[in-house]
Amino acid sequence: MELIKLLNWRYATKRMNKQKVPQQKVDNIIEAIRLSASSIGLQPYSLIVIEKDELKKQITKIANGQPQIEECSHLIVFAAWDNLTNERIDAWLNLVEKERGSIAERTLNFAYYLRDKALHCPIDENFNWIAKQAYIALGTALIAAASEGVDSTPIEGFKPDDLDTLLNLKEKGLRSVLILPLGFRDAENDFLVNQKKIRRSKSDFVITL
Amino acid sequence: MELIKLLNWRYATKRMNKQKVPQQKVDNIIEAIRLSASSIGLQPYSLIVIEKDELKKQITKIANGQPQIEECSHLIVFAAWDNLTNERIDAWLNLVEKERGSIAERTLNFAYYLRDKALHCPIDENFNWIAKQAYIALGTALIAAASEGVDSTPIEGFKPDDLDTLLNLKEKGLRSVLILPLGFRDAENDFLVNQKKIRRSKSDFVITL
Repeated sequence: MELIKLLNWRYATKRMNKQKVPQQKVDNIIEAIRLSASSIGLQPYSLIVIEKDELKKQITKIANGQPQIEECSHLIVFAAWDNLTNERIDAWLNLVEKERGSIAERTLNFAYYLRDKALHCPIDENFNWIAKQAYIALGTALIAAASEGVDSTPIEGFKPDDLDTLLNLKEKGLRSVLILPLGFRDAENDFLVNQKKIRRSKSDFVITL
Repeated sequence: MELIKLLNWRYATKRMNKQKVPQQKVDNIIEAIRLSASSIGLQPYSLIVIEKDELKKQITKIANGQPQIEECSHLIVFAAWDNLTNERIDAWLNLVEKERGSIAERTLNFAYYLRDKALHCPIDENFNWIAKQAYIALGTALIAAASEGVDSTPIEGFKPDDLDTLLNLKEKGLRSVLILPLGFRDAENDFLVNQKKIRRSKSDFVITL
């Protein structure tokens, strides 16, 4: 099974060699992320794609100095909606109606449920749920990168408030939740490249009922 | 690119036809999930795999009566650790040492950071972070299922406390966060099967800086 090979090939690359990833590969990775599943297909996040060296340098400073951020080709920021709002739900419903010509009753009922959530849930709870949808997309992104022979490093360790300020995300109603450098491994300088992948055994990981 | 085809083929299947998924396909899907990325490879969740009809029937009742749960072949429950503990971090460190012969300094430093998190973060915050790791695995699982020609339905809409009680997860230190029926679409009865996939346009979804 090809996917197993890709998952074994990929690893959280610690050093990259500054080589540019061809645009077609970047486009394919982004398209896979765009097609990623999310609750009812709401896609409550945006992707910020960064190529500028100066910006990468500034981001490195607020991400524990991790060198891949400067050494990567493209840095993808997963920026989640800061809250669930009726406006956003309605924009999505409009898109559904435009694309499908009508809205199925079940889809509409789910939208009503989301509107209720938007109204009554604390922002933190909504944001937390929204952020989780971006984590599904991260799962997609890692496989997409590997399928293009592109290395990547999922990074949670950065100061989201500082990054939001740097990228003016607050005014867009977005909050950064994950960053993902895309590039090519610098095998000579990466301590992790040849280390065995560690996973719990199937018998420990899976419970059959 | 094969992955784009798979992502376009899959959809959140609303009705399944009760046909059994061959064990080899289930095994491949589980193996992909086992290889999925998580923060430092901690895998802070387990998979519960359910085939028993009686159990599926009971789960349907606590999941808004969604018919795929009874109609699926295998139901996978993503059950996250209820908390981050020193014991769990140490078990992981022991596994790393056993598999690699030694523990890299950076890996050890991250383990110390996690121990600090385990000690000082509120349980809710830790659990929330843990649950997000399972969402990455969900992203992997959806692609793995599609790559085997198997349909699936990511489901957040169930009563996690009731499911935890039903499956005795509490005594295992686990809490259910996602369920995923695996099976084959019942195209005749699924209202969603022929509906266009709705995604925001690339120009709306991606911001290039």
